[in-house]
Amino acid sequence: MSLVVIGTVAFDALETPFGKTDKIVGGAATYIGLSASYSVKPVKVVAVVGDDFPQSDILLLQEHGVDTEGLQIKQGEKSFFWSGKYANDLNSRETLVTELNVLADFDPIIPDSYQDCKYLMLGNLTPQIQRLVIQRLINRPKLIVMDTMNFWMDVALDELKTTIEMVDVLSINDEEARQLSGQHSLVKAAKIIMAMGPKYLIIKKGEHGALLFHKNKVFYAPALPLEEVFDPTGAGDTFAGGFIGYLAATDDISFENMKRAVIHGSAMASFCVEKFGTERLLNLTQDEIEAREQQFADLVAVVPATAVQNV
Amino acid sequence: MSLVVIGTVAFDALETPFGKTDKIVGGAATYIGLSASYSVKPVKVVAVVGDDFPQSDILLLQEHGVDTEGLQIKQGEKSFFWSGKYANDLNSRETLVTELNVLADFDPIIPDSYQDCKYLMLGNLTPQIQRLVIQRLINRPKLIVMDTMNFWMDVALDELKTTIEMVDVLSINDEEARQLSGQHSLVKAAKIIMAMGPKYLIIKKGEHGALLFHKNKVFYAPALPLEEVFDPTGAGDTFAGGFIGYLAATDDISFENMKRAVIHGSAMASFCVEKFGTERLLNLTQDEIEAREQQFADLVAVVPATAVQNV
Repeated sequence: MSLVVIGTVAFDALETPFGKTDKIVGGAATYIGLSASYSVKPVKVVAVVGDDFPQSDILLLQEHGVDTEGLQIKQGEKSFFWSGKYANDLNSRETLVTELNVLADFDPIIPDSYQDCKYLMLGNLTPQIQRLVIQRLINRPKLIVMDTMNFWMDVALDELKTTIEMVDVLSINDEEARQLSGQHSLVKAAKIIMAMGPKYLIIKKGEHGALLFHKNKVFYAPALPLEEVFDPTGAGDTFAGGFIGYLAATDDISFENMKRAVIHGSAMASFCVEKFGTERLLNLTQDEIEAREQQFADLVAVVPATAVQNV
Repeated sequence: MSLVVIGTVAFDALETPFGKTDKIVGGAATYIGLSASYSVKPVKVVAVVGDDFPQSDILLLQEHGVDTEGLQIKQGEKSFFWSGKYANDLNSRETLVTELNVLADFDPIIPDSYQDCKYLMLGNLTPQIQRLVIQRLINRPKLIVMDTMNFWMDVALDELKTTIEMVDVLSINDEEARQLSGQHSLVKAAKIIMAMGPKYLIIKKGEHGALLFHKNKVFYAPALPLEEVFDPTGAGDTFAGGFIGYLAATDDISFENMKRAVIHGSAMASFCVEKFGTERLLNLTQDEIEAREQQFADLVAVVPATAVQNV
């Protein structure tokens, strides 16, 4: 049940209607790793940072069960940096700064100790690098989950499609599913995207929940209606980390278990947005997580009528 | 379990990406009445039309169990007419023509035979007329459900609030809930709106389903992901008709039963959008309806893990 995660470990500077941060630790692999660590340890991360990345934050990841042997530290270089500002409704954001830095020539080296990889999570990165990780694993993992974003559809569609063809589960949001398929209907979009290779498709709809598609089956996991969303950064990655962490921990990739994994991932994401950055993911308890999962179950629970009198 | 519905009975001319219609029969009370008729008969309608409204369409309503004693026919006047055009994604629409005609001085007369009203559905109309119907009923109904729209928030907010204060369940869409409450968070919006009077609030989110709020409880009914939405006209009214029809048929206004009523209303609305106007609502079978309700149940069904191994 060895879990390997590739993605960014980076700095973010965030501005939401509720406040702003200086550079804080972020990146897809950070959120995925922390989120998955509540289900399974270790989470073996492949990523790259510069020598500006604080040793204390690497220790923090390690304390949460993140194996950083695959985290390259490039002397004399700077870590990936992204800065963004959210609109008042938090549904859209503007990128203020993107500094690739160490990401510009990232060569994802897989430590030997990662070769037992059974579950592989490809966090958002260039599709070429995501593919390289698959190719560098001697044995194909039991399950490969891939996250990506519209940016790669704009600038590297052919590369993206080549990588998508190699994975089992693709996780994207509704607008990305529409862009990738050219279809507005998500049911039609799902069919087209699954025909590109992935046997499973997750379409994330933010505050409206997530859909899981497989063949002709569909599962709808609603999102918990929240009083306050403080900072949506990392919610999608936290979802993905919870999803694959749950699957790795249970070592069951049936559709029924994937439904439970989607609920678990949704619960983890609902914590993430309650505070800035990774803050809320650092000190969760299993009791809190189980109580939140129960809230998701209660949200859609209907007791069947013992006797429904339709005329 | 007598059900009274007030609303428009009217002509619509529709244009969607899939085609356009000449004047066809529409109006809130038409959709509500037809939808509710699959749960309970008769559905007693209070509405007004001109002498241009075809007798054959009145007969069609009667054949479906709609009592038209409260349908006034104004000689020498024309029926309400609305014409609209939907955007390509069907999520927005433009009003091309609104001719009030008989609606301009509509006086909702309640026939004596309607005074046994136990369930009252106030379809979208001026809030003054909706209120007049409540006042003209000798005994307050067991349950009053009200539908309205953003238009009345723009032009008659005080009147609207006075009427909202008198009802048990308010049914509006997400943007309307945000406008009425001044809050983006639907959880916060729901608290503010329930403090205005209604003990229950339904927030319709179109393709994202519907939320039912009551005190601190919330229920999320997802919408069925549909391959094709042909014409969204009347979906909200069909939902409302299915909702109150189910409650009237079961005569149970507990929160648990309201959840089932929301699912039933959602199922009815999912039929409505499959064809132009009321077409799909004219010949449904109970088997079709039950099968669709089962699809809604299956959509969110999760079998609990017998043994979840979280570390």
